[in-house]
Amino acid sequence: MFSKILIANRGEIAVRIIRACKEMGITTVAVFSEADRDALHVSLADESYCIGPAQVGQSYLNMEAILSAAVVSGAEAIHPGYGLLSENARFATLCQQCNITFIGPTGEMIEKMGDKDEARRTMKQAGVPVVPGSDIVESVDEALRLGAQIGYPLLVKARSGGGGRGIRRVDSEAEIERAFLAATAEAQSAFGDGAVYMEKFLFPVKHIEVQLLCDAHGQVVCLGERECSMQRKNQKLLEESPSVAVSPKMREEMMAASAKAAKAIGYRGLGTIEFLLSQDGHFYFMEMNTRLQVEHPVTEMVTGIDLVKWQIRVAAGLELDFTQKDVTLNGHAIECRINAEDPYHDFRPSCGQITMLHIPGGPWVRFDTALYQGYTIPPFYDSMVGKLIVHAPTREEAIRKMQAALCEVVVEGIENNRELQLDLISDERFGDGSYTTDFLAERG
Amino acid sequence: MFSKILIANRGEIAVRIIRACKEMGITTVAVFSEADRDALHVSLADESYCIGPAQVGQSYLNMEAILSAAVVSGAEAIHPGYGLLSENARFATLCQQCNITFIGPTGEMIEKMGDKDEARRTMKQAGVPVVPGSDIVESVDEALRLGAQIGYPLLVKARSGGGGRGIRRVDSEAEIERAFLAATAEAQSAFGDGAVYMEKFLFPVKHIEVQLLCDAHGQVVCLGERECSMQRKNQKLLEESPSVAVSPKMREEMMAASAKAAKAIGYRGLGTIEFLLSQDGHFYFMEMNTRLQVEHPVTEMVTGIDLVKWQIRVAAGLELDFTQKDVTLNGHAIECRINAEDPYHDFRPSCGQITMLHIPGGPWVRFDTALYQGYTIPPFYDSMVGKLIVHAPTREEAIRKMQAALCEVVVEGIENNRELQLDLISDERFGDGSYTTDFLAERG
Repeated sequence: MFSKILIANRGEIAVRIIRACKEMGITTVAVFSEADRDALHVSLADESYCIGPAQVGQSYLNMEAILSAAVVSGAEAIHPGYGLLSENARFATLCQQCNITFIGPTGEMIEKMGDKDEARRTMKQAGVPVVPGSDIVESVDEALRLGAQIGYPLLVKARSGGGGRGIRRVDSEAEIERAFLAATAEAQSAFGDGAVYMEKFLFPVKHIEVQLLCDAHGQVVCLGERECSMQRKNQKLLEESPSVAVSPKMREEMMAASAKAAKAIGYRGLGTIEFLLSQDGHFYFMEMNTRLQVEHPVTEMVTGIDLVKWQIRVAAGLELDFTQKDVTLNGHAIECRINAEDPYHDFRPSCGQITMLHIPGGPWVRFDTALYQGYTIPPFYDSMVGKLIVHAPTREEAIRKMQAALCEVVVEGIENNRELQLDLISDERFGDGSYTTDFLAERG
Repeated sequence: MFSKILIANRGEIAVRIIRACKEMGITTVAVFSEADRDALHVSLADESYCIGPAQVGQSYLNMEAILSAAVVSGAEAIHPGYGLLSENARFATLCQQCNITFIGPTGEMIEKMGDKDEARRTMKQAGVPVVPGSDIVESVDEALRLGAQIGYPLLVKARSGGGGRGIRRVDSEAEIERAFLAATAEAQSAFGDGAVYMEKFLFPVKHIEVQLLCDAHGQVVCLGERECSMQRKNQKLLEESPSVAVSPKMREEMMAASAKAAKAIGYRGLGTIEFLLSQDGHFYFMEMNTRLQVEHPVTEMVTGIDLVKWQIRVAAGLELDFTQKDVTLNGHAIECRINAEDPYHDFRPSCGQITMLHIPGGPWVRFDTALYQGYTIPPFYDSMVGKLIVHAPTREEAIRKMQAALCEVVVEGIENNRELQLDLISDERFGDGSYTTDFLAERG
């Protein structure tokens, strides 16, 4: 096992990882930008290094500075968290070259799955159903020709996309030229790769994902699914496990397909296979995330398995000490993301000092956050500042638990989306489980 | 189900009960003393009533004021929490007379079990092993005669005792007169009842207790055991479930004895049977607590059962929707009580304003408290201000989790016992599970 790990992230996920390390007896090294001197992850870690100015490009994405901190501190491994460098193949490879374990898959694997077009082809080969669509589209003419084959509406998607960027919806032939050019340009500027492909736009759909955990000894376990259909502009807002829409039979099929895919590509570490679930009950591979996810806690709650600890263990070469048969899903878990933003003014990000903070507690209520009373949220980073997670024997009880917990949350000094979350969780379409990814857009 | 409940308590347990009610859709009524205007339970409840001055005798023990608040607010039930009026038979009976449900057993049952001498006889009749000892001792002469029969060391115990008061240890015949008179006098002044009995002093022992939950339809379930041997002057400091010292066979026997006792007396509600476990592996009935206990969270964690919700449900006459067979004990849970006191200065209570509060979080870490940053702890009440609870697959992992969580706790502005707890949990005799109730006294 590693004796020292550097956490190349900030906010609640850095805190989450530091806590896991402490429980495992691993010394922790934090890195921080100049804007994060007072951040919680810095005070919780055993050591910390400033890696540059506030802007992520110069700090949390500054590979050289992070690797230097790892070398100087003698860290044997780097945990990238989510976002930032977590799916950066070059960083994973650089770590390897520095003889530091990147806690995640190899750079090659990240690249394979980060290339959405190659991921599609890989999954198709492994027998996993994929959304009907095209390979890379080279020109407007080709887009027009393939569009006619696929049928409208369709999506033009960036090969290197992620986080909802580099995607355009096309409802008819008339729109395709504009969408193709816009998606290409956005992808080029955001990811440095303008290549796009096209997919049938399935509508309405649910977003369902399967959590995978694979060790270096060929063992693959699937830890049930999460439903993440509650989204705003492709950003997840609320997640739950299990999904109301997934029957035991469908769960078996999804998990079997996911395990097959993981085995086919020789995957190692934590990973998530995202599926679209159409109204007629078919599921299609969308993409694979080769990292820990924001919504991992709901899986932890229903499986009783600490995903971060196991991610670290398998990265260190340890074997899983349980098999698929040992995995049982107990009860129901829901996560609401608490964002520092104003839902009543176009989700404008909010920053400033937290003048009063009250976190709900009690049995089976968890609040993952890096906030503390007196802390000043800097304006440079993600607006997600906390995750409220509940676990209960039934979905109905979990919903009531979340309502009570959300009512209790107090975050004064900034705007936040607590009331929106309360509205969502109390909505009839959430209650009956019929909500699809368009729910928030439709709701207006 | 009740639509409105009054919570006749304060601090973390009032908050715990209010949260359970909120999740159950029950309106909550708080009561508070003049010193508790800014208390968390007051701000979390839907309604609140001031019931008197700071001193508990004039407020939280003021039955008339509490019953008036219940009548005025239209509360259908009163939850007494623990301590205060929770084992006051007269209060339970008064509630009944006011047509308000007392969430607990009947006054008669409380009286029966509150009389330690009668409880012993009742348990003996039900076939539950009791510590060898006497009935009520009327005089010094009788004490001398019975002392010779029982053998030394022995304990003189108040019939109406509780919380470690009205107890004297007697090591030889020479000490018996003084102990008898002192225990009688203390019992008379503390409980208004000077009657005492004698028991063999078993030493060293572990304190093990079985959690019972009984509905009004004759169903009795046992929810495993808790070990509470870590005590200072008969006050529990740290509890865990399960106990290292209890084998599966002993657990079966203890639970069978407890269930038999509960059935024999027709018990209803939450209850705890406390046992002494001697070094030779025999267990003896000590007393029964007819209320929710401080340490209930460790049972909740390993069973997945919300004890407060079920306590309310069975008080409303609902049937348990599970049987003994459905109860499984998963993993290991530990609770550390965080007391506002100075362990390095004779456990002197500490009060004042909380200038900084940081509560540890993450998966399977729970902190039940009524503290918030800026809150001023008044000098009138119990020094226990929080309970840190962890749950993990194994005891070893639970210990490491508790160590990490304790390290993270920040409560500035008052003295507290965090470091003592850290020492205890890291002690070899806690680690190997060999600690007995004398551990803290021995440790010095």
